[in-house]
Amino acid sequence: MTYGVIMAGGQGTRFWPRSLANRPKQFLKLFGDRTMIQMTVDRLGQLIPEERCMVVTNVDYTGLVRDQLPGIKDDFIIGEPVARNTAPCIASAAALLQRHDPDAVMVVLPADHRIADEETFRSVLASAISTANEEKTLVTIGIEPDRPETGYGYIRYNQEKSRSRKEHSAFPVLGFTEKPDREKAISFLDQGGYLWNSGMFVWRADSILEAFRKHQPEIWSELEKWTGESVTRSEIDRFYQNCPSVSVDYGIMEQADNVQVLPAEFGWNDVGSWRAVYDLAEKDADGNAVMNTNVTIQESQNSYISTTGKRHVALVGVENVAVVETEKGLLICDLDRVQEVKEVVERLRREEGGDEWL
Amino acid sequence: MTYGVIMAGGQGTRFWPRSLANRPKQFLKLFGDRTMIQMTVDRLGQLIPEERCMVVTNVDYTGLVRDQLPGIKDDFIIGEPVARNTAPCIASAAALLQRHDPDAVMVVLPADHRIADEETFRSVLASAISTANEEKTLVTIGIEPDRPETGYGYIRYNQEKSRSRKEHSAFPVLGFTEKPDREKAISFLDQGGYLWNSGMFVWRADSILEAFRKHQPEIWSELEKWTGESVTRSEIDRFYQNCPSVSVDYGIMEQADNVQVLPAEFGWNDVGSWRAVYDLAEKDADGNAVMNTNVTIQESQNSYISTTGKRHVALVGVENVAVVETEKGLLICDLDRVQEVKEVVERLRREEGGDEWL
Repeated sequence: MTYGVIMAGGQGTRFWPRSLANRPKQFLKLFGDRTMIQMTVDRLGQLIPEERCMVVTNVDYTGLVRDQLPGIKDDFIIGEPVARNTAPCIASAAALLQRHDPDAVMVVLPADHRIADEETFRSVLASAISTANEEKTLVTIGIEPDRPETGYGYIRYNQEKSRSRKEHSAFPVLGFTEKPDREKAISFLDQGGYLWNSGMFVWRADSILEAFRKHQPEIWSELEKWTGESVTRSEIDRFYQNCPSVSVDYGIMEQADNVQVLPAEFGWNDVGSWRAVYDLAEKDADGNAVMNTNVTIQESQNSYISTTGKRHVALVGVENVAVVETEKGLLICDLDRVQEVKEVVERLRREEGGDEWL
Repeated sequence: MTYGVIMAGGQGTRFWPRSLANRPKQFLKLFGDRTMIQMTVDRLGQLIPEERCMVVTNVDYTGLVRDQLPGIKDDFIIGEPVARNTAPCIASAAALLQRHDPDAVMVVLPADHRIADEETFRSVLASAISTANEEKTLVTIGIEPDRPETGYGYIRYNQEKSRSRKEHSAFPVLGFTEKPDREKAISFLDQGGYLWNSGMFVWRADSILEAFRKHQPEIWSELEKWTGESVTRSEIDRFYQNCPSVSVDYGIMEQADNVQVLPAEFGWNDVGSWRAVYDLAEKDADGNAVMNTNVTIQESQNSYISTTGKRHVALVGVENVAVVETEKGLLICDLDRVQEVKEVVERLRREEGGDEWL
């Protein structure tokens, strides 16, 4: 059977003041009336129903997961006591799924992406699932790049060698590249044969566990301590406490030799900042995206406005700004400098009493 | 005796959302811990004590005047039932003062100006008071212009002909000019002999009443209806209802032939917009004026920030903006387009339910 594994551990510091310590990005309604994590589950549709989805998140957010995704079983919600990056997250999910179903195939998805063409997305996943199941490979979903983005990792692949002739075929991976500088990113686009690393993976639970045994013995040995019939809360806690912090890209994908990539185009966006939210939002003729009522726009363009609606908000003569107002905070940010929102959060963390606003 | 007559009828639409219908600019603490009208009375110091000040304001604000200026006598607070510009305001104050003291000299002051050099201000007024009292002229205070401002009226005067050799001398007025265009304003500065019309006047009550008799017979005839020993609330109401709306500049000063101007330099500012408030405020090394705590400034310059302090406010990468937050409203405005704040207020007035935010 196929299972969804939704990684929902992010803290969303780039989305202050909407995302706060007690409610990070994946649990927010940034688009319409469903939260990001709800949209992630919805998007799987018939391919993987909600009751076959597992969510890995910080232990503080398990209540939010239960509230927002009531169809998910309690033992399919893993609460991480500490953040250890994606490798321990995926290892624990694989070990639990394999106990549940020795033939489990896992579709690993971040909880906070947006995808425009959901039908193509599901068709790509279906193809990845059958490839991973039949060839016992580690399949990663690569996104056809349309600009020299420096914010993503890239995957180089062998465009010639696909074993199948299907519409969505997997190809051998030649290498992974960290976030490149602009010059390098431009050359990747010119050369071709490079894809964005989307952070979405498909594999059999036994395949990825075997890869952990080979390439991450430290994590593997922690998993081996789970000897009882079921895994207890304190065993999970101890596993995370003892695991090193390592990403699955670095810890597994760059080491393993049975890695494939499936190139895809389905309008993918990792919603990394207020800029991305603005880009994805519906806009009026002046390029303004207004998320609430009680807003007056006077001679202002290309701005994003999300407010509580409890006071009247007026923009006069401004351009290219994000205005985000909540009960706790108000952000006014140049849409070209949205990355610096995380500096604000970091400054508040350092300041005495700054926590109150996070 | 000398009396202050403080004109406090303004609605402060350029100061939304701080100034609301129930609390316009003159009743706000825009600078430090005293309101504009309190600062206006304070500034008179020993020259005119609070108990010799009269305030003319909208009838809805008489409670605010009593609260903010408890030293002012009840019969020295005139509540206007409708706004009729400055001529009826000054006529009613003059008529009431003259009943109180046939030799009254009036110092007429707007309630919402800022003056940097208060000592010089008082010394200018003292000189204007003795001139107005001795020569029975209508004395207006003119400000030496330091830039080709298009937002003020100008007074042309005869720089040669002063009757006195005092430090602050009054000169004959040659003419009044409406707000000029930029070219004209520049030529005024080049020529010399032009002053800004500050809207501050000094005269004997009997002199200005005589001028009303001559030049504003319609207003004068309404005043003549006050025949009883004291003037009742309903007589004042009827007076305002019946008076035409006319400014004292147009209705009296431009008509009368006994007008003098006293040129002055005391750091005058009519605080006409958020820009002026920003200009007058204390700023940090980046040119930011921050009126509250709980503000994080990240790479932002030359901005004015006034907030409730109840939420954390962060500016990231913005420049030259006013951010003004209250319980009812939030304004984000380019500091070079502050005049358009009044358009926002006008739009809200027209919109159904918009009143809620004013």
